[in-house]
Amino acid sequence: MSITLYDFPAKRTEHSAWNPNVWKTRYSLAYKSLPYRTVLVEFPDLERTMERLGAAPTETKPDGSPKYTLPVIHDAATNAVVSDSVSIAQYLDETYPSPPLFPNGTHAFHASFNDIFPVRIEPMLQFLIPSIASVLNPRSEEYFRHTRKEMFGKDLTELYPAKGSERREIEWRRFEEGFGMLDKSMRKCDILIMGGNMPCFADFTVAGWLRSFRTVFGEASEEWEDIMQWHDGRWYRFMKALEKYENDAVQPIHARL
Amino acid sequence: MSITLYDFPAKRTEHSAWNPNVWKTRYSLAYKSLPYRTVLVEFPDLERTMERLGAAPTETKPDGSPKYTLPVIHDAATNAVVSDSVSIAQYLDETYPSPPLFPNGTHAFHASFNDIFPVRIEPMLQFLIPSIASVLNPRSEEYFRHTRKEMFGKDLTELYPAKGSERREIEWRRFEEGFGMLDKSMRKCDILIMGGNMPCFADFTVAGWLRSFRTVFGEASEEWEDIMQWHDGRWYRFMKALEKYENDAVQPIHARL
Repeated sequence: MSITLYDFPAKRTEHSAWNPNVWKTRYSLAYKSLPYRTVLVEFPDLERTMERLGAAPTETKPDGSPKYTLPVIHDAATNAVVSDSVSIAQYLDETYPSPPLFPNGTHAFHASFNDIFPVRIEPMLQFLIPSIASVLNPRSEEYFRHTRKEMFGKDLTELYPAKGSERREIEWRRFEEGFGMLDKSMRKCDILIMGGNMPCFADFTVAGWLRSFRTVFGEASEEWEDIMQWHDGRWYRFMKALEKYENDAVQPIHARL
Repeated sequence: MSITLYDFPAKRTEHSAWNPNVWKTRYSLAYKSLPYRTVLVEFPDLERTMERLGAAPTETKPDGSPKYTLPVIHDAATNAVVSDSVSIAQYLDETYPSPPLFPNGTHAFHASFNDIFPVRIEPMLQFLIPSIASVLNPRSEEYFRHTRKEMFGKDLTELYPAKGSERREIEWRRFEEGFGMLDKSMRKCDILIMGGNMPCFADFTVAGWLRSFRTVFGEASEEWEDIMQWHDGRWYRFMKALEKYENDAVQPIHARL
């Protein structure tokens, strides 16, 4: 087991694996049948842990200093440390080519998909991000609420569309319409984005966001049950087809600082 | 020669085939080795001609009435009349499958590409659209200037970044950066979007815009020569690879009203 995946912990076991971007990597590793161990890092410890590991920052903070995000993997077989789910997928395709995450010359198409998909799921964030805050451990929760308030320009409690409000109905419809764009672009009979039985990284991108939502809201929630009925049950069939790559049974280890 | 392609005329022969969307269909037809005749329609005659042909409108005018655009094809072999370059490509793939315009399950990826590409080339429009106006016959030019003024909220003479102005430099750089996004998403060694030797509809989409620019500005223009040097000459190699599908030697016929 040469690969280590870095992830964030949650207060309760059923809410671990809440991060959509880490899910993309979890799916990628499982699809390639690559075993891995998971190391959990609280948000305030991320910078120090990643610096020590030698991970590359993926973004820049407003003050110009480097910003670290997860997922990050360390592959002891090659001693590579790779940040960002797309870069990790590219690294995995180069190092462990089969089955491919970017099949049949779809490299540039995946880049377009990654440009447009965040625009389509923007309405999802106001539901997901505030809900994520409440599954985190107190130290991470405080950090998360503070940094996300800066990102969204308002408290996460304000960002979240209140239950029963008219705004919630409107925004929930916008969330559905975002996925409707993807639904319309896929053939009616297809389950996966490229058709056939072989998923690609774009499938894992979509599934990562949905799987994160399911973890945070719960499989029995009204919200998840509604999503599973959208677009003639497309996302139910989609998530069902990818269930075999939901390898989240890995016993995580907490990072030592 | 069962297929008729509807296109717009220009004042001078060297400026015919100026429309980027019609170029996408011209490339699509040539790629599938499908011969066709071209019928030219002036803008003010389009609605009447398309209604008579039974073409579907592709958009809706601000007043709610149907809006017709080109390309439109009529295929006498099936008696199909198809509007819109994407729908035409889908029709051609269904009716004349080989070689495919949407290969290897890239249907949904093409839809994402078609969503993001117009955003990337938005800075191109202020150069191209005003230049198109001046190659049209007077009746079409008047119609075009009027309708595009409504679209862009200003006269096309204002929209165009004046030669020698600082604005032109900034906007030309933004135009280059738009194509830079696509350049970065492609592998350095690849010439076509999916790699290899087989183009796909996304290649013809990009080529359609570039080929239109070349027609309107001229191959010897400073602007075209600059584009051919962008990104280590990527677009020179790209256009060279697709040159064999630039079947614009077809003798056009003017529509009879």
